[in-house]
Amino acid sequence: MNKQEIPDIIISRLPIYLRALRHIESEGKQTTSSQELGSRVGISAAQVRKDLSQFGEFGKQGTGYDISFLIDQLRGILKVERVWDVVVVGMGDMGHALARYQGFSDRGFRVAIVFDNDPAKIGSQVGHFIVRDTKDIVTTIRKSGIKVAMLCVPAAAAQKVTNMLIEAGIKAILNYAPISLSVPTGIRVQYLDPSIGLQRMTYYLD
Amino acid sequence: MNKQEIPDIIISRLPIYLRALRHIESEGKQTTSSQELGSRVGISAAQVRKDLSQFGEFGKQGTGYDISFLIDQLRGILKVERVWDVVVVGMGDMGHALARYQGFSDRGFRVAIVFDNDPAKIGSQVGHFIVRDTKDIVTTIRKSGIKVAMLCVPAAAAQKVTNMLIEAGIKAILNYAPISLSVPTGIRVQYLDPSIGLQRMTYYLD
Repeated sequence: MNKQEIPDIIISRLPIYLRALRHIESEGKQTTSSQELGSRVGISAAQVRKDLSQFGEFGKQGTGYDISFLIDQLRGILKVERVWDVVVVGMGDMGHALARYQGFSDRGFRVAIVFDNDPAKIGSQVGHFIVRDTKDIVTTIRKSGIKVAMLCVPAAAAQKVTNMLIEAGIKAILNYAPISLSVPTGIRVQYLDPSIGLQRMTYYLD
Repeated sequence: MNKQEIPDIIISRLPIYLRALRHIESEGKQTTSSQELGSRVGISAAQVRKDLSQFGEFGKQGTGYDISFLIDQLRGILKVERVWDVVVVGMGDMGHALARYQGFSDRGFRVAIVFDNDPAKIGSQVGHFIVRDTKDIVTTIRKSGIKVAMLCVPAAAAQKVTNMLIEAGIKAILNYAPISLSVPTGIRVQYLDPSIGLQRMTYYLD
């Protein structure tokens, strides 16, 4: 399996399949089909089969996919059979919500450190965390070896904080700031901007 | 322009272009190129030109794109030159953050009504809003004519609330619940699940 050969658009669908498989499993089922999986996620059965076949032969003609096995395979491919420590920068409403978010457990992530630059927030408690000073980002993250960050600072500060995160060794940034970030090759950025999600849908509304 | 003919993957990139154009404009520039726009969003210049050409001739050979004109065109295509009222269901941390989120202004959206089913929250104030009772969703939304919802309820309640939203006339749902929703044809769902965003990146990490 050569990473260069698999388009990012396929990689982007694997977490969606994984979530849907867990949901089907939670309903007590042990096997599923590309039809069922596809209909859960709004993707054709043919595309589901094509996507999964990039990584191996996971299904059997006639019996379909063993859910538990396919979940394990996808977790391995996405490297979330381990737990990644994550930092959250910016303890506004969104950062607050993420620091206390219950949806990371068993999905491969754990918030480990939270930062803010507001003296009123530094040292205070958010969820299980004591808020650290943003100015210490580089030394603190380097010491921890953490590679993944969630960025919830205001747009005006986002690029500057991003530069610090990269200097600190962060390789993957989930960006909640409503701004496009400039990053060097090799650094991954995903955007979770609610306006973008909404604008993708209004195109189709009357 | 026939909506059936333009792939959703292209539609999904238009909000990203729009955000980047606003960012470039905020730096004081009046024109841009497919190279500059592409490099801001991590998409090739050729793809940018191909995507935009689906909707008309927006650029000029040699001078590139007039930013203000292209922003207006994209806002028109995405139908965000108007303001869409949006409901938020679920006043946990995430719903709270969305009700108070400052990033919707001038992006085409305005939170109009917020709901929760917790008696301790119903009637209380969140941001500018008085929290309404989730059991009144259908009548309240129908009366308002609102078509867009953000769903921030726990996973266990998400499908049931989705069914109510659809009965109420909602056509587009931004889903923050960590679960795949089943919806009829014609209803749009976008997922903003931080674990999904993170899992898309860990594939590439060592």
